[in-house]
Amino acid sequence: MFSEFIRPKFSDTDALGHINNTLVPIWFEGARDPVFKLFMPALDTKNWQLILAKVTVEYHAQFFYGHEIEIRTYISRVGGSSFDVYQELWQREVKCASGTAVMVHFCYQEQTSKKIPEDIKEIMLSHSC
Amino acid sequence: MFSEFIRPKFSDTDALGHINNTLVPIWFEGARDPVFKLFMPALDTKNWQLILAKVTVEYHAQFFYGHEIEIRTYISRVGGSSFDVYQELWQREVKCASGTAVMVHFCYQEQTSKKIPEDIKEIMLSHSC
Amino acid sequence: MFSEFIRPKFSDTDALGHINNTLVPIWFEGARDPVFKLFMPALDTKNWQLILAKVTVEYHAQFFYGHEIEIRTYISRVGGSSFDVYQELWQREVKCASGTAVMVHFCYQEQTSKKIPEDIKEIMLSHSC
Amino acid sequence: MFSEFIRPKFSDTDALGHINNTLVPIWFEGARDPVFKLFMPALDTKNWQLILAKVTVEYHAQFFYGHEIEIRTYISRVGGSSFDVYQELWQREVKCASGTAVMVHFCYQEQTSKKIPEDIKEIMLSHSC
Repeated sequence: MFSEFIRPKFSDTDALGHINNTLVPIWFEGARDPVFKLFMPALDTKNWQLILAKVTVEYHAQFFYGHEIEIRTYISRVGGSSFDVYQELWQREVKCASGTAVMVHFCYQEQTSKKIPEDIKEIMLSHSC
Repeated sequence: MFSEFIRPKFSDTDALGHINNTLVPIWFEGARDPVFKLFMPALDTKNWQLILAKVTVEYHAQFFYGHEIEIRTYISRVGGSSFDVYQELWQREVKCASGTAVMVHFCYQEQTSKKIPEDIKEIMLSHSC
Repeated sequence: MFSEFIRPKFSDTDALGHINNTLVPIWFEGARDPVFKLFMPALDTKNWQLILAKVTVEYHAQFFYGHEIEIRTYISRVGGSSFDVYQELWQREVKCASGTAVMVHFCYQEQTSKKIPEDIKEIMLSHSC
Repeated sequence: MFSEFIRPKFSDTDALGHINNTLVPIWFEGARDPVFKLFMPALDTKNWQLILAKVTVEYHAQFFYGHEIEIRTYISRVGGSSFDVYQELWQREVKCASGTAVMVHFCYQEQTSKKIPEDIKEIMLSHSC
């Protein structure tokens, strides 16, 4: 499990007084950095090797400005060239949102998927839920 | 079907040279305005009656700055108190992303779901896909 | 003068019920597209030739979700290699915000400023305020 | 001086490969939280007492994804009802951006400015640059 703590910003709120739902995909992508680093240790955007195929987010409870948020990140599936990242958003001991991103090991030059190397697979499995 | 045209902004791009994936949930929510208006014609945020339960987005093709985008919005399911909004993102005659938002007719004061009125159901069904 | 119309999104609001101030620099950059096109007609991000040196935004009145916004864009100064873009945000016949962006004609490879070509200067002057 | 550390997200980049300029006003507002707390210790958005009058941002150097950013926040002027917040963005020992926000102690019900209490003025002066 990877964990990241976020301090919500005033500009993250919406007119309903809570944090707007569109922040969750943004924060979840941000919290996938440790997963990106497994493939690209220096996070070099000129040699990027991952592409996003699908995201799902479920909203369980409202969350608010003024209280720290934790994003918990797990690897929930490892396939041949694709894998799933499962993530949860926690605030004040409540799981407020959860979701899954399907990512593909990808060659942007050839526009084709690539096999996930075995050594990365092993590290990934150590972060499974 | 509801249709909205968007001109992507330079700030919507990311280091891979395309539009960042996190814009899709933002644009899809923006394009649900006509659906919001069925429940709240004046879009009065002090009397909001909808809550988001789940979003799913699938990414089919990359999309870019410099070319107009169309968001197409359909009602794909109408239940007792919840309904599904299915949306597609098109650029240059390619369907680049699609997704579904599960929304609930909701009373924020009582924090409970509410039945969808019959007259709204009928209008929704005329926008089904 | 260049003019662009924007429909504010629900996610642009903040907990005070109005549109958050951070949207103005984002919308102003978006509305500078016609200025970008004077230098780069195809908006090719691989051959970008402008850099932002400074932005100033003054907030005159609150602005809200549910009503269309107009961004008006003028060229307020043309120098040797830099120029100023003056912009206003209007909603319901009220000027709600205004600001100036100082931009520089720039070579990213050599990391140096470049002279603005005379023909572009002339077009710019036709959009002055 | 108040200090905050930020890990830039992949979605904060733009097609030029650096962090987009529009993130600076967003991060600067986020880093003004300790200033907001001087007026509203619980950050209660239903009893907000500050309004933004003007922001200025100067861009000195490009900044990038993959390296931590520090935002330094100072009080640079304290007037009767308004005050200035001066902020700097640092990455890898380079000051990449700086700016000033003019804020006003404000009553949203009466839509008028209010005097800054003396005890808050004193704390502010201890954070001057």
